[in-house]
Amino acid sequence: MDVRAVHHVAFAVEDLDEAVETYRSLWGAEVELRGRLEDQGVEAVYLRLGSGRVELMSALAEDTPVGRFLAKRGPGMHHVGFEVDDVVAAARELQAGGVNVIDPEPRRGLGGHLVSFVHPESLHGVLAEVVGA
Amino acid sequence: MDVRAVHHVAFAVEDLDEAVETYRSLWGAEVELRGRLEDQGVEAVYLRLGSGRVELMSALAEDTPVGRFLAKRGPGMHHVGFEVDDVVAAARELQAGGVNVIDPEPRRGLGGHLVSFVHPESLHGVLAEVVGA
Repeated sequence: MDVRAVHHVAFAVEDLDEAVETYRSLWGAEVELRGRLEDQGVEAVYLRLGSGRVELMSALAEDTPVGRFLAKRGPGMHHVGFEVDDVVAAARELQAGGVNVIDPEPRRGLGGHLVSFVHPESLHGVLAEVVGA
Repeated sequence: MDVRAVHHVAFAVEDLDEAVETYRSLWGAEVELRGRLEDQGVEAVYLRLGSGRVELMSALAEDTPVGRFLAKRGPGMHHVGFEVDDVVAAARELQAGGVNVIDPEPRRGLGGHLVSFVHPESLHGVLAEVVGA
């Protein structure tokens, strides 16, 4: 499928409020939305930086994917979100092509967007997410 | 200063041709430009994915920043490029604000863009680059 845009680039952080303040003061970022994704164990913020979007994510507990990521690697770049027209079709097409799709059945991400993650082993070490507009 | 856009998100890869082919076949990416940056020790490609841009970088030698990154962490997310109006002014303003600016005097990056890197210690573990349009 054709990717339409880089929907967001996502960073794991230790302290969400502190990181939001850094992005505000350094880059003029504005908060687009903020929410807790209990099933993913994160609290996350979408920031707008001009036409771009950054997601900042903190862990709700140590025993979560982002909690383990932070414990192992420290804060830093976590994943990239590629915007596609149809997430359900994209996840199916990727899986049919032999890609390791973490969520063959897309689920709801921040802001209610349908999302499906692709394993880094299928993308040269990069965790990617296909996301609906 | 205000960031205008996410100019690109950059990934370190082991094999540039192979990675370009993955991005073409999975995501419909198109090569925008390709070049060697001898002073940074990388060969790099800008890919367009719809309105978005991904940079893929491979190391020209092991004893380069990207070569050491690959040896230590393996392929994966490397940095994010934030587009600003005036890179020279941005680098000065960041440095004056106490940010660890790696290139206080911006240099030429891929495609001749002026760029200045910001150290991850000033941005919650994320290596960032301010880049001119």
